[in-house]
Amino acid sequence: MSAAHPSTFSWNQEFILRPVGYVQSELKAPSLKASREGLSSDDNGSDRRHRAQEIRQVVAQIVVNPSLAGILDGLGDFSHALILYWPHLADPASRELTRVHPMGRDDLAKVGVFASCSPGRPNPILVTAVEVVRVEENMLTVKGLEAIDQSPVLDIKPYNRHYLAMDKVKLAPWMEQIERELTN
Amino acid sequence: MSAAHPSTFSWNQEFILRPVGYVQSELKAPSLKASREGLSSDDNGSDRRHRAQEIRQVVAQIVVNPSLAGILDGLGDFSHALILYWPHLADPASRELTRVHPMGRDDLAKVGVFASCSPGRPNPILVTAVEVVRVEENMLTVKGLEAIDQSPVLDIKPYNRHYLAMDKVKLAPWMEQIERELTN
Repeated sequence: MSAAHPSTFSWNQEFILRPVGYVQSELKAPSLKASREGLSSDDNGSDRRHRAQEIRQVVAQIVVNPSLAGILDGLGDFSHALILYWPHLADPASRELTRVHPMGRDDLAKVGVFASCSPGRPNPILVTAVEVVRVEENMLTVKGLEAIDQSPVLDIKPYNRHYLAMDKVKLAPWMEQIERELTN
Repeated sequence: MSAAHPSTFSWNQEFILRPVGYVQSELKAPSLKASREGLSSDDNGSDRRHRAQEIRQVVAQIVVNPSLAGILDGLGDFSHALILYWPHLADPASRELTRVHPMGRDDLAKVGVFASCSPGRPNPILVTAVEVVRVEENMLTVKGLEAIDQSPVLDIKPYNRHYLAMDKVKLAPWMEQIERELTN
């Protein structure tokens, strides 16, 4: 391993990740494109609602590197898991974005990337909780994963309420608006 | 950027991350140590309960790289955020662990690392939701962050119910046991 684990902090340190698995999914293209210029989408409101419903129902496989034998043992005892993955079709230049229109929508004012779910961000690691459907050897089957086919998977965790379930969650008004539009 | 974004998957690709910030906290040492041999802790049940209570109350700062001006804009409109950070005191050799005793407790049977919250894992990215207390320029103040002082922060996201709030969560019996013990 490199000098990636010093005990004192430095802005210059680097952390090197390798995929632990990859996604097999019927979702083939991201609904949101990320480039140096920002986010963009060809979807209209109806497309977005359809896509959101599709994602909730989609059943996908995560193929875990067979060299990591045993690493999924016991995950089947959990109803949900957290998946960390890399948005591999986002333009690497989109890692330099600091402010974006949410969902690439010009009708929503720009916000900081850390106040958004933009796939273009300095360290583009996307995080989503999913239902655990089945665990078989090095294959994890899940429901509700937004990652598209061939996405590199970086980590898999059990869904832990202590770290993830929050009370009295308040969202920014623009995200409340997006949620309303997606469920109407 | 490197050849880190091919559109077809390969086990050999590497993703290079750099910290976007670091933690300032009164928590100075991890309660759980990760090494090539596995997880270990000096804490007894009373220590663990005390630590869990302390973490829920602790107020910490995340200092964001000043070169990322504007990247936190709008995060103050959310009650909660998701923090991704690197457990910098974990032995790099613990990235090779595939099965661990949960919390380093010999009284709990080994499980796969992907069924655990082990800080030793192939890509040691820890994820925790926190309360947003305050956003000022490049400083984010949060409550409930388990990361220790000087932890490199990899990403900050708004807490998005769609991706993170799950219904009817079922945990493995060993994790239910840990949760009961921590709250009794």
